[in-house]
Amino acid sequence: MRKILIIGAGKSTSVLIEYLLKKSQSENLEITVGDLDIINAEKMTGGHPAAKAISLDIFNKAEREKAVEQADIVISMLPARFHIEVARDCLRFRKNMVTASYISEEMQELDEAVKEKGLIFMNEIGVDPGIDHMSAMQVIDRIREEGGKVILFESFTGGLVAPESDTNLWNYKFTWNPRNVVVAGQGGVAKFIQEGQFKYIPYNRLFRRTEFIEVKGYGKFEVYANRNSLKYTSIYGLDDALTLYRGTIRRVGFSRAWNMFVQLGMTDDSYVMENSETMTYRDFVNSFLPYSPTDSVELKFRHNLKIDQDDIMWDKLLELDIFNPKKKVGLKNATPAQILQKILMDKWTLSKDDKDMIVMYHKFGYEINGEKKQIDATMVNIGQDQSRTAMARTVGLPVAIAALKILNGTISTPGVQLPITKEVYTPILKELAENGIVFSEEEKEYMGYNPFGEVGS
Amino acid sequence: MRKILIIGAGKSTSVLIEYLLKKSQSENLEITVGDLDIINAEKMTGGHPAAKAISLDIFNKAEREKAVEQADIVISMLPARFHIEVARDCLRFRKNMVTASYISEEMQELDEAVKEKGLIFMNEIGVDPGIDHMSAMQVIDRIREEGGKVILFESFTGGLVAPESDTNLWNYKFTWNPRNVVVAGQGGVAKFIQEGQFKYIPYNRLFRRTEFIEVKGYGKFEVYANRNSLKYTSIYGLDDALTLYRGTIRRVGFSRAWNMFVQLGMTDDSYVMENSETMTYRDFVNSFLPYSPTDSVELKFRHNLKIDQDDIMWDKLLELDIFNPKKKVGLKNATPAQILQKILMDKWTLSKDDKDMIVMYHKFGYEINGEKKQIDATMVNIGQDQSRTAMARTVGLPVAIAALKILNGTISTPGVQLPITKEVYTPILKELAENGIVFSEEEKEYMGYNPFGEVGS
Repeated sequence: MRKILIIGAGKSTSVLIEYLLKKSQSENLEITVGDLDIINAEKMTGGHPAAKAISLDIFNKAEREKAVEQADIVISMLPARFHIEVARDCLRFRKNMVTASYISEEMQELDEAVKEKGLIFMNEIGVDPGIDHMSAMQVIDRIREEGGKVILFESFTGGLVAPESDTNLWNYKFTWNPRNVVVAGQGGVAKFIQEGQFKYIPYNRLFRRTEFIEVKGYGKFEVYANRNSLKYTSIYGLDDALTLYRGTIRRVGFSRAWNMFVQLGMTDDSYVMENSETMTYRDFVNSFLPYSPTDSVELKFRHNLKIDQDDIMWDKLLELDIFNPKKKVGLKNATPAQILQKILMDKWTLSKDDKDMIVMYHKFGYEINGEKKQIDATMVNIGQDQSRTAMARTVGLPVAIAALKILNGTISTPGVQLPITKEVYTPILKELAENGIVFSEEEKEYMGYNPFGEVGS
Repeated sequence: MRKILIIGAGKSTSVLIEYLLKKSQSENLEITVGDLDIINAEKMTGGHPAAKAISLDIFNKAEREKAVEQADIVISMLPARFHIEVARDCLRFRKNMVTASYISEEMQELDEAVKEKGLIFMNEIGVDPGIDHMSAMQVIDRIREEGGKVILFESFTGGLVAPESDTNLWNYKFTWNPRNVVVAGQGGVAKFIQEGQFKYIPYNRLFRRTEFIEVKGYGKFEVYANRNSLKYTSIYGLDDALTLYRGTIRRVGFSRAWNMFVQLGMTDDSYVMENSETMTYRDFVNSFLPYSPTDSVELKFRHNLKIDQDDIMWDKLLELDIFNPKKKVGLKNATPAQILQKILMDKWTLSKDDKDMIVMYHKFGYEINGEKKQIDATMVNIGQDQSRTAMARTVGLPVAIAALKILNGTISTPGVQLPITKEVYTPILKELAENGIVFSEEEKEYMGYNPFGEVGS
């Protein structure tokens, strides 16, 4: 029996557990799911003979140590900031570990000790980060093996609503953590490089500096810049790239409308509003508009943001019922971001039969034999049902597959790592493809940013 | 002999010292000026027989203690964060103290101990904070004594260039710390209350939500909101006020043009730009604009911010020479704000004969005998020469006057305080008026925000 401990029974855990339980007999697995609330854990195990639910408080050292000690490998699906406690136990008890989160500084500091003990702490192996790393490195490595030099890398991911469930004017519903959507883009300038020139976009311009992409069969999307494009230079070894740009995918028109909230300050999460509990949706909007004894909130809104009355943005606002003078916010000491989130959740929550969609799009520009070429790789995945969402599958499957590959020795290089080596991405991408998570590649004329060869600015 | 120790020989110290030296004989004063650089201190004392310059490193405990111990009163003109060290010495050696800075939490915590020892630590006694407190409280107290209730308080201050030296399109020159001007409005939402409604303005809207004021003989100005209007409720005891709004004064049109820099992210002080030392002014601007192989920086700028070519804002930009492809920034590891400051200092530095101007404007709305009334109080002060600037005089004189009044026992209430009591403001405002720093009051029809009695929104 090989024992797998899964800590945290959140949204993406169901797919992860289902995958492992399916293989429990052939692979000889015993799966323990630990959660602060044992009822959550029991829901996940569903009485399967190879599975056990336990109550696990990760701040209870004895409980945590006991659970880790009994496992052969530990999968932490906790919020990112909690991994480090588990990681330290894994190091002490010599257990391998898997997470879907970005490698924190603290986690990175364990690298040497992890290597010394011959352990594998595999991180960033969900969808973004995760599938993005693997699918990008597969193409980048191939280009290099053929003697090419990558000069442009752009990479975009979006968690969206599937076309069949796309029923609102925003072409958007919450498919993961709504809070992350509301505060997206805050906390620092978006920095990237285009044709060798560093570019910076402040938060208040982020949603007006979008670019378009087209995905065959799915139409047009738009992309706004992520904060962190430049760190991929070193992670992917892209020292020759003149263009490095990562972004988030939305349907066209989302960002322009979202920008209304940004401009008025409704996405601010840094202060608490007065009387937030008793204010109405209309009061909330009015708080960000100048006082007037005579003009309506609607007119002030339109005038302040210069919105014509026949602009589709206006219909998007009305759809949210954001000017309602009766609906109460009902949140104590809430920030603008928290209130906006509540208003949006009224309208953007997936209904029972709604399906979500993950879209990923990479562009690789490269030089080979004096010629410039381009490969575009795209992946679209649609959710299967309420628990097997595209998000849960694209996060849970790579985690589960990685855990099993580590257990079986297919992945064997020790250290605190992320999935950018062939040893890791080749078998995982193969199995993801068997599960319908697959990229289609297209060779394109290299466009870069300078199709006509003019001198840029 | 009464010994006054002045720590820090900065811009406003010259007026402060001049005032005290003038009184040194009649008031029996001995003045010591301490600065890290004794040459600065010597410049200030100018060989006057009643004055002594010393080298004083406030981080050298022994040096600092010795200087404080020998004084009868200490005036700290250091940057605000350094006052606390001096304050603790003053407490230990039982010396009174004066600063022109906002009371920090650490300073406030000394209040009880200061009172116990019967000492006076007078703070916020420059121009803003300082003259604003005193002039406002004088009117507020008078309204109350007459049986009135203050329902509206608005207060605006600006450090500007005098009309006779107003020679650029921005109608602005740096008359104090340029850095504070570049980062003004950052660090939190501007929050205030208008007719009982809380209003919030995020940084990216701050310079588009201005209001106009008119000052007799000086024309029209505009005002953008300060962050901290609401704290004056408790400081001034304005619990009945439905409107509390504080702001910064600029000439009309400044804010709309300044907003271009805000929108593009040029005032951001939170990150360092790549290659800041070698970039040109033009490169700097281009960093905030989308890459294009063909379009000029000028066109991208105009297009991004939707500026017509005949808009005066465009001329303001050209005046700054901000598109110059040859002028180098020349600052290592600089933030956007630091680079913008450098570009502006090329053009906005006061020349030798330029004069500055301080404008202060208060509005008091109040109810008395069932009637609503309004008083507007305005103060305009023009600099006399390069060292006796309006800023140096309006900061230095109240500090100097306060120090002498404390020494003479006219101001005698102990504690960590700011100048809001009659004991403090009456004698100081009187003497400021004798020095030409004087408010003119006008009774006006109460306008509030609701002149037509309509139901507001």
